[in-house]
Amino acid sequence: MKRFILIPDSFKGTLSSTEITEIMGEKLRRRWPDAEIVAIPVADGGEGSVACFLTALGGELVKVPCTGPLGDTVDGFFGMLADGETAVVEMAAAAGLPLVEDRRDPEKATTFGVGELILGAVKGGAKTVIVGLGGSATNDFGCGAAAAVGIRFLASDGTEFVPTGGTLAQIHAVDFSRKDPRLQGVRIVTMCDIDNPPYGEHGAAAVFGPQKGADPAAVERLDAGVRHLCTLLERDHGMSLSQLPGGGAAGAMGAGMVAFFGSELQMGIETVLDTVHFDELLTRTDLVLTGEGKLDSQSLRGKVVIGVARRAKKQNVPVVAVVGGADGDLHSAYGEGVTAVFTINRLPEDFSVSRYKSAENLAFTMENLVRLLDVKGKEE
Amino acid sequence: MKRFILIPDSFKGTLSSTEITEIMGEKLRRRWPDAEIVAIPVADGGEGSVACFLTALGGELVKVPCTGPLGDTVDGFFGMLADGETAVVEMAAAAGLPLVEDRRDPEKATTFGVGELILGAVKGGAKTVIVGLGGSATNDFGCGAAAAVGIRFLASDGTEFVPTGGTLAQIHAVDFSRKDPRLQGVRIVTMCDIDNPPYGEHGAAAVFGPQKGADPAAVERLDAGVRHLCTLLERDHGMSLSQLPGGGAAGAMGAGMVAFFGSELQMGIETVLDTVHFDELLTRTDLVLTGEGKLDSQSLRGKVVIGVARRAKKQNVPVVAVVGGADGDLHSAYGEGVTAVFTINRLPEDFSVSRYKSAENLAFTMENLVRLLDVKGKEE
Repeated sequence: MKRFILIPDSFKGTLSSTEITEIMGEKLRRRWPDAEIVAIPVADGGEGSVACFLTALGGELVKVPCTGPLGDTVDGFFGMLADGETAVVEMAAAAGLPLVEDRRDPEKATTFGVGELILGAVKGGAKTVIVGLGGSATNDFGCGAAAAVGIRFLASDGTEFVPTGGTLAQIHAVDFSRKDPRLQGVRIVTMCDIDNPPYGEHGAAAVFGPQKGADPAAVERLDAGVRHLCTLLERDHGMSLSQLPGGGAAGAMGAGMVAFFGSELQMGIETVLDTVHFDELLTRTDLVLTGEGKLDSQSLRGKVVIGVARRAKKQNVPVVAVVGGADGDLHSAYGEGVTAVFTINRLPEDFSVSRYKSAENLAFTMENLVRLLDVKGKEE
Repeated sequence: MKRFILIPDSFKGTLSSTEITEIMGEKLRRRWPDAEIVAIPVADGGEGSVACFLTALGGELVKVPCTGPLGDTVDGFFGMLADGETAVVEMAAAAGLPLVEDRRDPEKATTFGVGELILGAVKGGAKTVIVGLGGSATNDFGCGAAAAVGIRFLASDGTEFVPTGGTLAQIHAVDFSRKDPRLQGVRIVTMCDIDNPPYGEHGAAAVFGPQKGADPAAVERLDAGVRHLCTLLERDHGMSLSQLPGGGAAGAMGAGMVAFFGSELQMGIETVLDTVHFDELLTRTDLVLTGEGKLDSQSLRGKVVIGVARRAKKQNVPVVAVVGGADGDLHSAYGEGVTAVFTINRLPEDFSVSRYKSAENLAFTMENLVRLLDVKGKEE
């Protein structure tokens, strides 16, 4: 055993992906002090995503004061990775729900600061900007972010304004002509793990509005606003966003990233794998350790374990998944390249009890995996 | 992977050791159809012990009608192993609690039938008789079994009688002179996993009497009877039984096996390992799979996993334990030769829920162990 890649998702509600790579790494290093251990805590786009990328690839945290969700100034930041050309922005840093505390109001909240952070990264030399969606307090279709980079929104009387969730319906025209030219040639990649379309029954407002503070009437208004802007962008700019999977992410900012930033929407795990040059890393790797809170036989889409396994399979690198729980028939997972799955439940205990033991339980399972792999090492 | 030994304990209350070896074997055979798989479901001495030995070593189930715990005739049996020289008797077949149903009365119940089974085995050619204690309805110190092989118990007026739990105090003398000569030269090994002394606070009556139907007054009488016989055997025959660990097993039959049958008391797992010639089996084995309901950092005495590991360690054969739960610090287990421990809990669920999924959970863990070992196989 010479080289390991550790690339787990977080165990939602119990362990961050960084904590998991630390526990995994500690157990491996204790047995193989000279092994090369590549730790890639997976970012899902939400809070902590910048830190994950910096841990995996090195680089610098750049602090940029920016507009917060309610118009105040907040301590924004982005990550400039060690290559000096790739930046990571997490939307939550400028428009996150924790920033509004008890003043939740998705009709008023703006993503303006997210646009400032993107622009800041570009000014800082980024040729690629990875934007993580998630944890937002907004439902503004990304119009705030668009306005921050020079896109103009005009009311029927010709006045320019920065739309928020509550004023999307007042947009009469969108003017792309003054978009900041420094964005030209910059690749924007948006991390987005959900499928929801911009509006409708499964849209941004209906599904995520309530947790942002929208009552049923507000949900209807927000939904109508997003629908209005989709219709307008289709009519005036030929953009087909209504059915866009992921368009409803982060208060329809998924759709806005496509419309205003020419971004692609990508599964978070695919973004991570591309950015860390996972395929190259694999060529010299003996074992990949991944994991997530729960692996089941439901949709495998966007699952970290599966995304990792698919790539490793092509190069015949074994993948062991350490998970909080495994449910249903996992044959599809095996088929995708998962070599083996081990759960961390030392004892038959309900999650309400075991959740507080996740770190020690993970350490236990890793200890025993290492011990078994060590036998293998000795026999070789 | 060419040869595996499967030697688990039962998972108390959920899976028998035979069921466990079947699940383990099925998963191994599916991947390595040509592997040699030695299945040794571990017997603990209680009900099912004969079947376990027959599964592990082959042989014949010999049916012998014998005296039941309440003097009636029951369908007794013993196992004659394939070597034709070793027999296995389980006490429960002639004096088991299920045989008395709702007529529990440890003051009246007898082990007479156990003696008949032992004698039957000897008549059948056994040079070694393994006697499994456990699950008994009796508290007669094994006097019934002793009487069945010719040992005489005399009252103060010289009359001979067969003592039961309630009449132990009436024994005035024990006469060994007419013990059946066919028992000479026969080795009797008693499987006994508990430490309790014959009488006193931790003795047979106090600890196990209530579950056999003894009320507090009966417990006192039973305890006094056992104490009386210990004193008598020490006084008249120089036997020191009062502190004998395991002497309190099965209604003080542990002490009786030593006193009347010259037996040794042995941990069940040690008896199994000796009988299957485990040390010889190990010499050509790639991996030992063992397991038990719960492995913890408490006393390792009598634990199947530890007993197996100690022997395997001497020959550097890796031992993987698959368990229902693992608690506390397992470093002492690792030190004894356990390579790695994996639990079967697929999901974080309380035992009240997961107990009904034990078979599928075990199959899941085995599937993944096999998958991981298979990678190992391919790399070799």
